[in-house]
Amino acid sequence: MRSILPLAVAALVTASAVPALAEEPGTGATLIHLAYSIDTFYFLMSGALVMWMAAGFAMLEAGLVRSRNTVEILTKNIALYSVACIMYMFVGYNIMYGGGPNGFLPGFGFLLGPDNGVGDVLGSAGEIYYSTIADFFFQVVFVATAMSIVSGAVAERMKLWSFLAFAVVMTGFIYPVEGYWKWGGGFLDSLGFLDFAGSGVVHLCGASAALAGVLLLGARKGKYAGGRVHAIPGANLPLATLGTFILWLGWFGFNGGSELKISNIEEANAVAMVFVNTNMAAAGGLVAALLLARAWFGKADLTMALNGALAGLVAITAEPLTPTPLVATVVGAIGGLLVVLSIVFIDKARVDDPVGAISVHGVVGIWGLIAVAFTNPEGSLLAQLTGIGVIFAWVFGASIVVWAVIKAVMGIRVSEEEELAGVDIAECGLEAYPEFTTNK
Amino acid sequence: MRSILPLAVAALVTASAVPALAEEPGTGATLIHLAYSIDTFYFLMSGALVMWMAAGFAMLEAGLVRSRNTVEILTKNIALYSVACIMYMFVGYNIMYGGGPNGFLPGFGFLLGPDNGVGDVLGSAGEIYYSTIADFFFQVVFVATAMSIVSGAVAERMKLWSFLAFAVVMTGFIYPVEGYWKWGGGFLDSLGFLDFAGSGVVHLCGASAALAGVLLLGARKGKYAGGRVHAIPGANLPLATLGTFILWLGWFGFNGGSELKISNIEEANAVAMVFVNTNMAAAGGLVAALLLARAWFGKADLTMALNGALAGLVAITAEPLTPTPLVATVVGAIGGLLVVLSIVFIDKARVDDPVGAISVHGVVGIWGLIAVAFTNPEGSLLAQLTGIGVIFAWVFGASIVVWAVIKAVMGIRVSEEEELAGVDIAECGLEAYPEFTTNK
Amino acid sequence: MRSILPLAVAALVTASAVPALAEEPGTGATLIHLAYSIDTFYFLMSGALVMWMAAGFAMLEAGLVRSRNTVEILTKNIALYSVACIMYMFVGYNIMYGGGPNGFLPGFGFLLGPDNGVGDVLGSAGEIYYSTIADFFFQVVFVATAMSIVSGAVAERMKLWSFLAFAVVMTGFIYPVEGYWKWGGGFLDSLGFLDFAGSGVVHLCGASAALAGVLLLGARKGKYAGGRVHAIPGANLPLATLGTFILWLGWFGFNGGSELKISNIEEANAVAMVFVNTNMAAAGGLVAALLLARAWFGKADLTMALNGALAGLVAITAEPLTPTPLVATVVGAIGGLLVVLSIVFIDKARVDDPVGAISVHGVVGIWGLIAVAFTNPEGSLLAQLTGIGVIFAWVFGASIVVWAVIKAVMGIRVSEEEELAGVDIAECGLEAYPEFTTNK
Repeated sequence: MRSILPLAVAALVTASAVPALAEEPGTGATLIHLAYSIDTFYFLMSGALVMWMAAGFAMLEAGLVRSRNTVEILTKNIALYSVACIMYMFVGYNIMYGGGPNGFLPGFGFLLGPDNGVGDVLGSAGEIYYSTIADFFFQVVFVATAMSIVSGAVAERMKLWSFLAFAVVMTGFIYPVEGYWKWGGGFLDSLGFLDFAGSGVVHLCGASAALAGVLLLGARKGKYAGGRVHAIPGANLPLATLGTFILWLGWFGFNGGSELKISNIEEANAVAMVFVNTNMAAAGGLVAALLLARAWFGKADLTMALNGALAGLVAITAEPLTPTPLVATVVGAIGGLLVVLSIVFIDKARVDDPVGAISVHGVVGIWGLIAVAFTNPEGSLLAQLTGIGVIFAWVFGASIVVWAVIKAVMGIRVSEEEELAGVDIAECGLEAYPEFTTNK
Repeated sequence: MRSILPLAVAALVTASAVPALAEEPGTGATLIHLAYSIDTFYFLMSGALVMWMAAGFAMLEAGLVRSRNTVEILTKNIALYSVACIMYMFVGYNIMYGGGPNGFLPGFGFLLGPDNGVGDVLGSAGEIYYSTIADFFFQVVFVATAMSIVSGAVAERMKLWSFLAFAVVMTGFIYPVEGYWKWGGGFLDSLGFLDFAGSGVVHLCGASAALAGVLLLGARKGKYAGGRVHAIPGANLPLATLGTFILWLGWFGFNGGSELKISNIEEANAVAMVFVNTNMAAAGGLVAALLLARAWFGKADLTMALNGALAGLVAITAEPLTPTPLVATVVGAIGGLLVVLSIVFIDKARVDDPVGAISVHGVVGIWGLIAVAFTNPEGSLLAQLTGIGVIFAWVFGASIVVWAVIKAVMGIRVSEEEELAGVDIAECGLEAYPEFTTNK
Repeated sequence: MRSILPLAVAALVTASAVPALAEEPGTGATLIHLAYSIDTFYFLMSGALVMWMAAGFAMLEAGLVRSRNTVEILTKNIALYSVACIMYMFVGYNIMYGGGPNGFLPGFGFLLGPDNGVGDVLGSAGEIYYSTIADFFFQVVFVATAMSIVSGAVAERMKLWSFLAFAVVMTGFIYPVEGYWKWGGGFLDSLGFLDFAGSGVVHLCGASAALAGVLLLGARKGKYAGGRVHAIPGANLPLATLGTFILWLGWFGFNGGSELKISNIEEANAVAMVFVNTNMAAAGGLVAALLLARAWFGKADLTMALNGALAGLVAITAEPLTPTPLVATVVGAIGGLLVVLSIVFIDKARVDDPVGAISVHGVVGIWGLIAVAFTNPEGSLLAQLTGIGVIFAWVFGASIVVWAVIKAVMGIRVSEEEELAGVDIAECGLEAYPEFTTNK
């Protein structure tokens, strides 16, 4: 979410002698009203699209786990979204955007303040140009996205309530702190680290927390039995495909909204370019992953193709504006190749990630951040590597402490019997498909 | 859908001497063009989101019934949407918004008139500020929502064509009449009854019609056999979860669009607050229902959580603008607690509502209307209770007459054999999942 | 996508002496900024909705095939979308919109140029009024729609990679050429052929390519065994219903965006009318098909109802602006009747189209184009018939050549053993529902 130069509106404010109060608006004031309205509307539509990504993660993950662990992953996904909204409203938004004494230590505060006053907007020379409450809405759906990444990686064996306890800390504190460092104007922003819509702040963050959880949690029973890697197929691939399509659609809001402004010609062009590049990177990622899977495994592996599309999306997220569409396709395609390699490698390393979340969001998130150094003239490889290191170190470090505390206090893994029977009955008391499954 | 004060644009019209005709537009006229465009676009996007709720209801209900009754509930849902559109175009919109001789008796008319003329808009001093045809689009998707509520409650045993016959009367007459009383400027509006986006006009209305149908229809075979309440699990919980996510997303259009205007700073801020409060109430409802279910039943019951989210949405719908986000969360959370209690209570009372629609939309709709008296300074408890009483009495009374007529003429319940075999084969000649189900 | 008259903005440019450069914008320049922003935003939202149709086709087709051919149809759908995006970026967009030496031979070029400069927009007297990159985004999702139509018709027996090879040619060349003839300003446009959003350019095009493929491919094994037509039920009707709802929603972008402008009163009204007529036609199509199926087969056949809704949408796509909502309902209803007749007839003619795509998009696409002669005063039956003939002849002819070449080079049909076992294992190495299916 880069900073913007509200040139046109600012110039207008100067040019047309806007009265300070709204009671007698002239043309200039009304133009500001309209521009504010357009930018706020654009924020809200973008936010709605990102909120929709919560459904995408839920469907993707529910499709990729076994049927006996499906209700629980659905519950985790919709509950984490709710927890994220509540925690971010309580404290997270203030931590992330409340400023701080220096670029390292964020501020602190509770709840949301009132929205912008009309007089403040009109008198701000274009600096205040959209609703703060709309900004909260857009930001809160990002928090939920970061947390959604975790649920897939720990699927099929983590306790529901331990997961939700972690979600409270992650969405209220861990994410907002590193978010402050970059988007809140903290030290990562100052040193030139670039991350347009969050390949690092959101995706690498989620993957780092997921990795910490997976390392403490261990692999699913039977996954590496007898010294071999066993594939555990997902129960419902149309659902996983639907989830991918939902994420693809939602990403237009995720990246497109992160331009933060659409109300003049340059900004409208920029948002359009972000849409196109986001779409092309996903297409490139899908095709690359599909071709690599075909060449390597001899089959057009749909799950790899889906992860390829998601990898393309993650890869372009750090910089969807400056590349040409062709370059965006290539950035996405490299992401698609990397994700296939990473999934296979991570599996061989016996890190059990049922949906490939660490590869898609972590490995490819890192690629996306590095690519910025080559696709944005203002990018610096050193700054990008610093940002990657800082985000990973903070989120992984903080997460492993929190996971360890939760493990000590309430445990993080279901019992072996519960895992074998499926966590749905144990945790939720329901079956996802009570009339279908034949191998209960 | 509260009335609005088009201050900024109205002031502008006065200030800038707009010519009455469009042939030679000056700046003021063009500003009006742009504001009209923004508000119409916002209406259309909101309407598209509400239309999407029809898919949400279809998926929710299809996920919560047994597989042998799934095709029929899908057919009902998509057909009722179509019937609602046609009937509302024919007569409903005119009844609801055509004015009437007094606040009780609505007007009558057929089909839609032409949209606003350019000269009329420019000369209206801001009173006409969006497309009437866009307004119809936004309104018609609300009608369908009200009717969608019914299909879930009567699932698994009502005849398809009897249901659609009811849909004709409900969407063409019953809903528009009470809609006129409030949103069409009738007596409920005059006496201060507040209902921003339809906790009463839409949700309580749908639930009242559903209750009437359920009472005449009776419970499903076996539901209360042997004097005990038997749980009948839904066949596809990912589908039900998807439906809930769709409804959650669509609700941003439902409530957000009901502000009716976005084209100035105050209105844009208002729409943003409605989005945030809608989201927070859903989150609050989900968490509250999940915690209560965990405490009460010992399990994280996903279906209760889903109903909790929907209850939060229904509860905030009567007033999503004036509460703070924290208060909105609490309003939603109380909705979430109420819905769990209500579902259990209604089941004990042997009113068989397979998807909990009467609890979600009726009981919690009433809560939402009552809450307005506490969250909106202009709210009056007496007016709210009057509105609740009037809507329930009218819709329940009219519905029970219509259901009874349909019952007498063509019957409303499938035969016992058809019910046991599943209504899909009897009514639609198709199976929803011909290759999956093992307990046909 | 009809041409538009940017009256208001053009007049404004004249009236307010806009400076040629953006450095010192006055009110007029800022108005142009805002109008450009609104139209670009509207394009991007419309494009996002059309992109969502790719998910709709995927779900529809995945729901209507047997479970053992589900992974492959999902793979085809998401891969063809990606291929379409890449090919259209490489060459298709330039062929379609690059102009040509005459109205028959299109131009040629690679990749996308830069977006509009601010000075160019401000100096264009309203001719340049939205982002070219946003236009590309909107157009590219149309290409994918045309190609999506093919995948359903050739389902359950065509080789995956042969299909994708065809997609390369179709989206890079065949579609762009006929698109140039109409929307690129070629000879079909010159002779008065009307096709607002693509009943012909998109839907008939897709169906013509599909028919060519089906004729070369032959019917599925067992479909016409023993001289009789055997119904082969789809595995997941909730998924097919979801797909239909997604398509219905996405169509608001498909038709609504094809007005190409929303930033003044007339255009906003026009977009609103397009939304309403699109919705009414779908409703009319669904009800008509449901009633006809009930009368003819004795059952409320859900798949016919879904195809009826889609038929209504296809039928109105050629002219969703000029009819009244009532007429739009009738146009859709005739489409709904036609699709039922056509599906039965085509099946009797032993053309095996598993999802009815040729009927929905081809037969009803033709109906939609013919209807324009009656619903739009500027329509000419002769021009419409000419357009139908030209599009069919070109697309069918070119496609059959391409299919034949692919057949000769790599084959187009899976082996009999693979078909009987299901193409999923053979092509993708995965099962869609590994835990559900009982009749493997």
